[in-house]
This record gives sequence, structure tokens and C-alpha cells, in this order.
Amino acid sequence: MFESAEIGHSIDKETYEKAVLELREALLEAQFELKQQARFPVLILINGIEGAGKGETVKLLNEWMDPRLINVESFLRPTDEELSRPPQWRFWRKLPGKGRIGIFFGNWYSQMLHARVEGDIKDARLDQAINDAEGFERMLCDEGALIFKFWFHLSKKQLKERLKALEKDPQRSWQLNPLDWKQSEVYDRFVRFGERVLRRTSRDYAPWYVIEGADEYYRSLSVGRIILEGLQAALKHKGRPKLQPHAAPLMSSLDNLSLLDSLDLSRKLDKDDYKEQLATEQARLNGLLRDKRMRGHALMAVFEGNDAAGKGGAIRRVTGALDPRQYRTVPIAAPTEEERAQPYLWRFWRHVPGRGQFTIFDRSWYGRVLVERVEGFCSEADWLRAYGEINDFEEQLHNYGIVLVKFWLSIDKDTQMERFKEREEVAFKRYKITEEDWRNRDKWDLYVDAVDDMVDRTSTEIAPWTLVEANDKRYARVKVLRTINEALEAAFKKD
Amino acid sequence: MFESAEIGHSIDKETYEKAVLELREALLEAQFELKQQARFPVLILINGIEGAGKGETVKLLNEWMDPRLINVESFLRPTDEELSRPPQWRFWRKLPGKGRIGIFFGNWYSQMLHARVEGDIKDARLDQAINDAEGFERMLCDEGALIFKFWFHLSKKQLKERLKALEKDPQRSWQLNPLDWKQSEVYDRFVRFGERVLRRTSRDYAPWYVIEGADEYYRSLSVGRIILEGLQAALKHKGRPKLQPHAAPLMSSLDNLSLLDSLDLSRKLDKDDYKEQLATEQARLNGLLRDKRMRGHALMAVFEGNDAAGKGGAIRRVTGALDPRQYRTVPIAAPTEEERAQPYLWRFWRHVPGRGQFTIFDRSWYGRVLVERVEGFCSEADWLRAYGEINDFEEQLHNYGIVLVKFWLSIDKDTQMERFKEREEVAFKRYKITEEDWRNRDKWDLYVDAVDDMVDRTSTEIAPWTLVEANDKRYARVKVLRTINEALEAAFKKD
Repeated sequence: MFESAEIGHSIDKETYEKAVLELREALLEAQFELKQQARFPVLILINGIEGAGKGETVKLLNEWMDPRLINVESFLRPTDEELSRPPQWRFWRKLPGKGRIGIFFGNWYSQMLHARVEGDIKDARLDQAINDAEGFERMLCDEGALIFKFWFHLSKKQLKERLKALEKDPQRSWQLNPLDWKQSEVYDRFVRFGERVLRRTSRDYAPWYVIEGADEYYRSLSVGRIILEGLQAALKHKGRPKLQPHAAPLMSSLDNLSLLDSLDLSRKLDKDDYKEQLATEQARLNGLLRDKRMRGHALMAVFEGNDAAGKGGAIRRVTGALDPRQYRTVPIAAPTEEERAQPYLWRFWRHVPGRGQFTIFDRSWYGRVLVERVEGFCSEADWLRAYGEINDFEEQLHNYGIVLVKFWLSIDKDTQMERFKEREEVAFKRYKITEEDWRNRDKWDLYVDAVDDMVDRTSTEIAPWTLVEANDKRYARVKVLRTINEALEAAFKKD
Repeated sequence: MFESAEIGHSIDKETYEKAVLELREALLEAQFELKQQARFPVLILINGIEGAGKGETVKLLNEWMDPRLINVESFLRPTDEELSRPPQWRFWRKLPGKGRIGIFFGNWYSQMLHARVEGDIKDARLDQAINDAEGFERMLCDEGALIFKFWFHLSKKQLKERLKALEKDPQRSWQLNPLDWKQSEVYDRFVRFGERVLRRTSRDYAPWYVIEGADEYYRSLSVGRIILEGLQAALKHKGRPKLQPHAAPLMSSLDNLSLLDSLDLSRKLDKDDYKEQLATEQARLNGLLRDKRMRGHALMAVFEGNDAAGKGGAIRRVTGALDPRQYRTVPIAAPTEEERAQPYLWRFWRHVPGRGQFTIFDRSWYGRVLVERVEGFCSEADWLRAYGEINDFEEQLHNYGIVLVKFWLSIDKDTQMERFKEREEVAFKRYKITEEDWRNRDKWDLYVDAVDDMVDRTSTEIAPWTLVEANDKRYARVKVLRTINEALEAAFKKD
């Protein structure tokens, strides 16, 4: 969920200053229109890691827009009056009216996370707080509110640097955030529980936006752009703005740096190492699947990736070590008529393996947020909603003890071209290349965005994505096998 | 929640047979249209008390409609295959396709209730199951499904009679329902947890319909009519049928017997008894509000009722015993401009009392499902959604320890006329009667429906409605005071 906010996004000062001029004007205009229409309120929730620029961003938003139409509320220690009423009361009383913008700092998410990180509450209570938050936001959106939820992120390394810099700043008031961020464990817990919260509360009508907080220019411009685009879309929408999904794109990658770009595709294995490691990992997988602890679990492996990235080859190396009774491969193509008559996830639910079983999905339920999104095979509302539905689905698998590994096999454009050409030239490979592959290639950039969004929204602690550097097939195959083995071993260890 | 399903609804055989002829034809026609359009599936969930006619109704629906387009699924003991997969799998695999009807017996609700009644799970686990169910149904409705949820109800007395009758039936297979309904405690627990489940999962897009199960004709015809009306509305609706609220009316009271009709309005108190009881109850209230246990609570009293039912007088008898610092009265009129710029419940949240305080609402948040519904001041979608929002709101009050009592002061039409006339005649009362009161009177029957729905959907174990027989003002005033006192004492006892 935080992967793409740890890749070092940044933009230079000149680009920033130029962009800000336009942005400010557009924001002011949108804000004026918001006031004129007075049809709905805007709520901006500010959360995330300490030192990732939360305060600075709020300050900036206030500078950029007309502060008379913005309420900035920071819910620090509750007042006596607030303490003597149900917890939601303090948020209700500060809600912005129609035509206004409320920026909520230290909101319900901060409170639940803080309490959980400190150990004041346990998971059950956290889940209840999450449900309350979901219900509250749903009600607000049903009533027309437009909600932006920002999570400012820093990697652990970035946080350390940031803390060091902040220490020298005498103005810094540490009282505001009583968590001791200098403890490495606080970061770990905050991120772990934060991910749980984001996974469960990111809905199409009130999604989370994860912002890498290290570079001030990137961070500020990203937030500004997201608010502007969301606001413009909501203002344009006729009729009541209730329960609208937020406009895509989900992430504004201003510096054109994507998660996929950050992969080191030059990684490779030489033939001897490959042979040895492949044999080791295959034997290990074989053993793990025969382990009696496997009876309490099941294994699902999802393969997605660029065309010609080597999904088929990787799958064959996985199954190569196994008895055919030990696994099933499910190739996902266009849905059948029966499948089209059912909710989207139905055709994947039917292939969920029973205990002790292993199912490989050659393409998967992620088709909705990849090919269906890019090709327009479903409505925007459908694929925007799908992230949440998929997370719910995978949570159910996880809760039942199913180990889920998800691979995106990534190659660069040149490598794909080479492989396409090779396929056209070699007779027995020709069936593997179609017109469609060439068409998909034209949409390369759209897929890059879709994959970035997909990983941001569905890589969770219970079902993380593994991005596989696949220019070198040998490296990719071993990485896939090893990842599966490690996931199984981790699950067995927890038993 | 079950109040109006315990008042002895029934219809005679002749009426039934005549109505069924038409109903069957219309159902078959709608079913055919459903198949032709093949735009959405229909899911009918059958739950409730043992012996309340669940099985019989399913059998009947199958007879009335084309059984080739209906899947009846009863989820009894899970199969081996089902046990080895996540719990939701067994429901997914049986989902009806678009254009088809699935009738689910022994569904997710039966399972969670059964487990909770038996004590296999506790409240936290029940709440998690409730959330899962809500998520699942939301997803199904997002994908277009039309869901009907029926709760077949019997009063405890009706159940006992029913069980006696069933005992003589050798065909009866008791294996299907392993709860021992002969135990009075089983009934109590089932109803209590059932109410929790219904309260939390009754949403505008998938509401519960509570059906009194004692009279076969009433029961069958009610279910048939609700399905027919809902189905026709969904078929008529252009575009994707996603997340549509169900069409009103919520309850088909076929026998014209309403909850309000079932009140004995002849109840009265003579002057001496009144004086004595009033003084006792007022003193009791005064004492309770000064009790130190009150510091951990707050008290909210809601007064709704027919025009001229005596709300003002009852409120004055409550406050008469108190020091003005002990309470606040909040009269609810049309919303101010500031209030209109906020979500509906905002103007009530702002008046939530702090710990130790007592607030009286002269009219309340129920305006949305009463006057706003009847007068069309809000959209149907708004008031249909409001029941769930109100229950969520009241749950938050309850969880915080606030004692909430809700009164509907009920008079009959004649009594209202008398009082209207009296008001017109007596100079100092003339300000109390307006044109609006006469207009409201014309809509008497619409209000009866609205009150019935309101009580059905918002009378919960945490915030029950008290219907007050108010033809006799003395009786009404004492009942109001006594109810408040009892609610406070019950809350203190639980501390």
C-alpha cells in the first residue's frame, strides 16, 4: 500500500513554481465555484507519518486558497465538553457547511491509530473504530460531502533523516504528537496498523491517497492537484453529488516516476546459479506442499504481468516440481455467459482451493483494474469500486488461512519488442503473438498507471504484491518460486 | 422492531383467495419480465422464528411462480467441500444468475444467530459476522442484485401454541433446526440477537421486512405483495438497478390493522390517582437525576405524536418537578439556514447532552421519516436511508451511556377533533391551532403508515419506542414519567 510512496518522488523547484502559479489560480476558481453552488461541503483528512509534511501541507493549502472559506480543525486533546459526550460529537460540531472546506487534522483515524499503536486498544476495538469511521463517511457522502483522505508517508530511512533535521529546529513542538517516533517499533506498528486502516476504509467514494512526503515540492503539488481534480469533477457533476466515486487518475505521478520504473530490470542469474537455485526452490516447494501443516492452509498464486513477460514459463517452473494432483492451473480469459450473469468476483470464488490445495491463476481478478480499466470494458465506477471489493475478498481468503501470493512480472519495452519479434519469427511460438498484443503495447503507459494504482490499493500486509524483474527469465522464475516458498514458510511458522 | 408483528394480523380465506389469483398472475408476469431483461438477479433471504411459516412460504412462492427460474437453497450442514473453504464460498456458489431468483434458507443470518444463541460466539464475533454480511450484500447490490430479507416473527405466546400444534405432526423433522425452541430462553435470546442483527443490517438498498407469521393467509399474501412490488419497481427502473433503495411502502398492512390501532386508547386515570401518581413519579425523577450514578449517564427524551396529543402538557409535567438547571428543552422546527447546510443529523447532534444532563426534544430527528416523508420535503431515498442512519446515531448515544426514551403520543381522530375545536374556541389556546394542523389531519392515514414503519424500523432494544395512549391526558402524563424513571433505573442497575 505504501510501496509507491517510497521510491523517491521529487520535482525540481522551477517546475514546481511554474505549476503552482496555475494550480493556485485554478484552486481559487474552484473554491469560488464551490461557494457559489453551495451544494456540498468538502472534507480533507490529513493523516500519516510524523514529519511527512502534514502541517506544512495544511499551511500551504490555506495560503493557496481563500482561508475564509476553510476551517482548519485540529482535534488534539478533547475539551471537557467533548469528553462528556459520545466520541463522534466533536467531529460533528466542526463539520464544514455546504460550500465550505474543512481540513481535519488529528481526526478519527489519528485517534484510533494512536490508541492501537500505544496498545490502549486491541484489534477488535480497532476494527470497531474502523467500522464506525466507514459508517460516518458513508453517511456524509450520502448527504453529498466530498471527502479526500491523505496519508503522508515516509520510509523508515526517510523518517530517521527527517527526525534528525527536526531535532535542530527549536520551534518544533513535540507535545502535539505524543508517539515517540524515534523508536523504530513505533514506526513499524504505525505502518502496520495504518495499512489495516487504509485497506478497510479506502472506498470508491472516499479513497485514500498515499503521498510520499519526503520531497516538499512533489508532496505539495500532488495534494493540490488531487484536490483540484476531485473538486472540479464534483462541481461539474450535475444533480446531487452523493456517493460519487472519485475521479481517476487515482495518483498524480507528477514526476513521471512510477513504481515499475523503480525496479532494477538488469537483475539476472547466470545459467549455473539458475539451475542450482531452481532445483533447490522446486524441491523446497514440493516439500512444503507435502508438509502436514499444509492441511490447515491452501495456496493461491496469481500471475499478472506485461505481455511476453514470461508468465507461462514461470508457471511451468512452479508446476514442474509438482505432481499434477498437487495443483490446478486456472487460465482466466473472457468470462463465459454463465459468469457474466454473476457478480464480478463469482468466477474467481468458484476456483478458490480447498484446504491443502494449490491453485495457480494465470491472470486473475485483477483483470478488472488492468485490462478492463484500460480498455473500457467496465465503467469507471466499477473498477474504482473493485479495489475495495478485492481487498475484502482477499481478507476472507487470508482469514481462512489461505496463503495468497501475487506476482506482477515486469519487463521493459525493448525486451517486449525483442520477444514479440522472436515469437513472430519462430514457427512454434507464433501462436503466442496476436494483434491484441500489439494493441496492448500501444497502451503501455496506461498500463503503467493501472499497475501503479493496483499495487498502491491492493498490496496489503495480508496479500502483498511481489513485483518481479523479468527481463531475465531465469532471475524471474527463481524469484517467483522463492517468494512462494517464503510465504508458505511464514504461514506455517505462525501456526 | 417486532412490535407490529405481534398484533394479530390476519385476513379471511375469501379475501385471500381472491387476492392470490391476481397476485400469482402478476408475479408470473414479473418473473417472465425478469428473465427477459436478464439484467439483475433476485435474492430472497428467509429468516426468523421457528414455526412462523418460513418453509410454508417458500413452498408457496415456488408454487406461485415458475420454479424453473427459482433456486431454493437451504444451507444446512456444510459439505466437506464447503468446510474446506472460506465460509462465504458456499453462498457464492449458489448465487442466482441475472434473470433468476434465489431463495436462501439457512443463510448467513441463520448461521450467525444460531451460533450466538447457542453461545458458540460472543458479541464481538457476531458484530464481525454482521459487518461481513453487510459488505457482502452491499457488493451484491452494487453489482445490481435485488435483495429481499424476510423475518418471520411470532410472539412468545404464538410460538408456544405453534409448537404444541407441531408436536402432533409426525412429519415434522426436528433435525433441521437444532435450537430447542421449547426453552423460553432460546426465544428470548433469538429475538434479542435477532433485533441486533436486523437493526444493523437493515439498509435502504436491502431492508428487512418483518412479517407476523401466525396467520397463514396474512403472511403469504404480505410476502407475495412485497416481492411483487419490489420486483416491479426494479424492473421499471431504467439503467443499472444498482444500489436502489427498495420501493415504499415498507410494510404491506393488508388487513388495515396498524400498530396504532392496537392501542387501547380508553385507558385513563381518575383525578385522585393521577395526582398521587404524578407526585410520586415526579419526585422519583427528581431523585434519579440527582443520583450520583447519573454522572455516568445522560438522558434524552424524544416527544412525537399526533397534533393536539398533548406533547406540551406531558413535557411540562416532566419538567415541573425539576430545577431549570437540570434540563433543557429543544423545540424542533424547520431547520435554519446553517442547519440546512449540514447533514441531516447535525442539528440534533449539536444538542446531545453532556454527562449528567437531561435534554428534552419536542419533536426530533424522526421528523425526516414523519413529516418530511408525508409532505415530500425530502426525497424517498433520503427518508428510506434515514432509518439506518438514525439507528446508527442512537447506537452511538447508547454506547456512550446515554439513556434514550422515545414517546409517540397517540390519540384517535375524534379526540383530535374535540381538541382542535376547543382550541379554536378558547382564546388563550387559539395560538395553538393553525391551518397546518387541519392539513395534517387530512393526511391522518399517511401518518399512521409512517408511524408504523418508524416503530418497526427504529424501535430497538437499545432505544425502544413507547407508544402512549393519550386520549386521557392524565394517563399519558403518568405513563411518560414512569417510563423515563424506569429507563433510568434500569440503566443505573446495569452500572
